[in-house]
Amino acid sequence: MSKGDNVVVLDFWASPFCGRVKTALEEKGVNYVSNEEDIIGKKSELLLKSNPIHQKVPVFLHNDKPVLESAIIVSYIDEVWPSNPLLPANAYDRAQARFLADFIDKKVFETGRSIWASNGEEREVGTRDFLEVIKHLEEALGEKDYFGGDAFGFVDIIAIPHSAWFLAYEKLGGFKIEDHSPKFSAWIKRSLERESVKKVLPDPEKVYQFVLHFRKMLELE
Amino acid sequence: MSKGDNVVVLDFWASPFCGRVKTALEEKGVNYVSNEEDIIGKKSELLLKSNPIHQKVPVFLHNDKPVLESAIIVSYIDEVWPSNPLLPANAYDRAQARFLADFIDKKVFETGRSIWASNGEEREVGTRDFLEVIKHLEEALGEKDYFGGDAFGFVDIIAIPHSAWFLAYEKLGGFKIEDHSPKFSAWIKRSLERESVKKVLPDPEKVYQFVLHFRKMLELE
Repeated sequence: MSKGDNVVVLDFWASPFCGRVKTALEEKGVNYVSNEEDIIGKKSELLLKSNPIHQKVPVFLHNDKPVLESAIIVSYIDEVWPSNPLLPANAYDRAQARFLADFIDKKVFETGRSIWASNGEEREVGTRDFLEVIKHLEEALGEKDYFGGDAFGFVDIIAIPHSAWFLAYEKLGGFKIEDHSPKFSAWIKRSLERESVKKVLPDPEKVYQFVLHFRKMLELE
Repeated sequence: MSKGDNVVVLDFWASPFCGRVKTALEEKGVNYVSNEEDIIGKKSELLLKSNPIHQKVPVFLHNDKPVLESAIIVSYIDEVWPSNPLLPANAYDRAQARFLADFIDKKVFETGRSIWASNGEEREVGTRDFLEVIKHLEEALGEKDYFGGDAFGFVDIIAIPHSAWFLAYEKLGGFKIEDHSPKFSAWIKRSLERESVKKVLPDPEKVYQFVLHFRKMLELE
């Protein structure tokens, strides 16, 4: 792809799904413009036109053509800017990475939500479910530095932006991830040292305040 | 891959997700063994060992190594047996195909279930939601013969096995898909003429009887 590529992310600062796209772009050294969306208020015409079915961020606009769904966008970025590959070279390893990404997609944000968007018993169940999901991820990580082995790659990019929300889950759920899954916790710290991640991820304290604000809107506080 | 490959599908005859894997294998001319699972009764040790997280079919065993999640399995099959490619060659078209496959994954079976696993008003809502999903698919199809253009490919393989359940949805929901989405309906007929699909898909009447049996188990009849 030429340097003249026009790359725009329809973005929301706290979204872990947007965080994936921006981390992938940073890893690839691709310049991009972030267009912040008012996802709680009025969504932009460009967002509604680009993603008429789901009307969600992130939307990735590559020379004005939309690509949707964060894990698909990260795959697309990896295919279009092939240097510093994110997905493994081997078909079997690639399928394993996609499986783990799909598991993270289906479970991490959803079980996290059942902690912060609830109270009482529902929150206890949410906490148990979330810690179970993290336990599975800790097992998948095993003794490796990153999910794919020695190098930060596809699954790490899918997973790490969620960590900006973990302080909120921990404070509201009354637990510490490192007490339950120390290797996963060490993986978070290791990943947060990368420039691509540091540059993109929001401050967990700011996310926590946002979550508290949202809880008030939902009349949970 | 050599002819000596050992290819096994942990299977369930009525599952549209298993249907995808078998249709892809038929399209590629790969010999395989189907191991029928008792998904309502006792799941096999091999299933529980191969898919400990979700404990679901299909499991694709390639020389005893498991690959999970039907859309990921179809991608894997396409990569390992590259002749007669299923996914488009171009990265942008590939991202569009993956988006549509993801939409089908999230919406078709779920909205279908809200027709057959309910009664009364809930079923009416389910019927409206299902027809809305099919309308989106009809729009994505447009004037093309198949979702990817002239050739039967990835999205068609993801979508067509669901059609074996459509008779049940139509009978229980009191509608005909062809009255709402004639182009999508013509695409079903066109796809059902392919040998790979004919060989794999169950008789819709048999699926309907299975659904009625299931409804009795759920005390909905």
